[in-house]
Amino acid sequence: MHVVDTVNDMQNICNKFIQSGETIGFVPTMGYLHEGHLSLIKKAREENSKVIISIFVNPLQFGPNEDYDTYPRDFDRDKKLANEAGADYIFHPTVNEMYPDDMTVQLTVKKRTNVLCGRNRKGHFDGVATILLKLFSIIRPNRAYFGLKDAQQVAIVDGLIRDFNLPITLCPVATVREHDGLAKSSRNVNLTTDERLEAPYLYKSLLEGEKLIQAGERNPNVVITTVKEYLQSHIKGFIEYVEIYSFPSLQPLIRLEGKIIIALAVKYSKARLIDNIIIKI
Amino acid sequence: MHVVDTVNDMQNICNKFIQSGETIGFVPTMGYLHEGHLSLIKKAREENSKVIISIFVNPLQFGPNEDYDTYPRDFDRDKKLANEAGADYIFHPTVNEMYPDDMTVQLTVKKRTNVLCGRNRKGHFDGVATILLKLFSIIRPNRAYFGLKDAQQVAIVDGLIRDFNLPITLCPVATVREHDGLAKSSRNVNLTTDERLEAPYLYKSLLEGEKLIQAGERNPNVVITTVKEYLQSHIKGFIEYVEIYSFPSLQPLIRLEGKIIIALAVKYSKARLIDNIIIKI
Repeated sequence: MHVVDTVNDMQNICNKFIQSGETIGFVPTMGYLHEGHLSLIKKAREENSKVIISIFVNPLQFGPNEDYDTYPRDFDRDKKLANEAGADYIFHPTVNEMYPDDMTVQLTVKKRTNVLCGRNRKGHFDGVATILLKLFSIIRPNRAYFGLKDAQQVAIVDGLIRDFNLPITLCPVATVREHDGLAKSSRNVNLTTDERLEAPYLYKSLLEGEKLIQAGERNPNVVITTVKEYLQSHIKGFIEYVEIYSFPSLQPLIRLEGKIIIALAVKYSKARLIDNIIIKI
Repeated sequence: MHVVDTVNDMQNICNKFIQSGETIGFVPTMGYLHEGHLSLIKKAREENSKVIISIFVNPLQFGPNEDYDTYPRDFDRDKKLANEAGADYIFHPTVNEMYPDDMTVQLTVKKRTNVLCGRNRKGHFDGVATILLKLFSIIRPNRAYFGLKDAQQVAIVDGLIRDFNLPITLCPVATVREHDGLAKSSRNVNLTTDERLEAPYLYKSLLEGEKLIQAGERNPNVVITTVKEYLQSHIKGFIEYVEIYSFPSLQPLIRLEGKIIIALAVKYSKARLIDNIIIKI
């Protein structure tokens, strides 16, 4: 596995791959890899002849009061994990390499942002879209892999790819879960013993919602109320939201139809957990 | 020469070219081709194994009071001219093919816009950048050709390519001129006989400015004043602006150094003429 740290080198390497008919699978990350990332790398490994991951903590997607400076970084560990999962290249540029000058052109994500977690992270997805557009131009992947745990990010990448006719197949990968259903997250270690014991009910509440829909319920408010009541009777954590939208357009629905997402966020003492389920009706 | 009207077909054709090692030269146009466009196509023909031009009147770059509906269109004539100049493909999509849905992501050009002609065309270059980013993703050219007559557009495309690390070489092509120096333009036919006679002084005034700089003048205001006075003593048209900036960053200068542009616009009764000269100091 090789580490590349300049745009120019990475672009030249990918150029050769493209011209020699290789297929490139790309996994963009901010490093500090966990099992979610590794599942993306493994999936990319199965479907492409070359697998490239990027490790870049993108300052543009952090708000002024967010944790850019303290965001965890451990490149040596990441290198080992990425290699074991099957990556061929890590693209690991500096901030100055990615943003050498002020940008003349600004990207603003106008839709799919003001719902779910995006509602409280103004500008976050503008930064995500900007870095992804840059990385996509540098790597020029056939397929790009994103975890469905952050379903809103998947929705926004879908919009970016469509809007600009990017010749990239978006590959959303199912959330990796513990044996009891809890979505894997680096934040789970911050749960107390009691919180960890009740946390699987987040996913169970989503399955309750799904069951109701499969039984024929088409009113989103009824499903939301059921999921909330189920949560309230099983957990002590603070329910930040339970929401239902079309997916990936993230539009509110009067009647459930097509592809939809039920998503929720719960706050615990030292961790905020999110989870979601996507259902085709 | 082939005409392609869907994004999908064009993307597939270009994909094959890229994988078989062809080089793609791309000339984006809004059609109604004139000698300026043909010089771009000819240049692309010299430097690439495949030449693709797009003909698309992009609604996004027209202001509400501009002439989108009446913009001249003559596809049969364009086809003949593009073929003679050496194009292999014309990409000629409909508006619905290029903008099937509302965009989720919006591009805003934040720099290089509020000078020269851009000052009075709010949003124009946002539309230009958007359609170019889309066309670049569809065609994936090695080289993209733009006329230096619209130097501000060249500057903005330079920013777009840099900002998003697009793997494209920007190829600015010198302005095509009449034997008397007047920059060729479809609008020249709207000049009266007297206006046409004095119009070559636009370019001559730029050469006066250049002469002054070559003689050692480094104060932009002195050069601007000289060009203006030269114009005033030779033409009756209304001088809209004479401006000097760094190029391509289009920043105002206190002292002339590096690559600079002297640009001007003059209004006649039924035509508005622009011209510029780029000088390396």
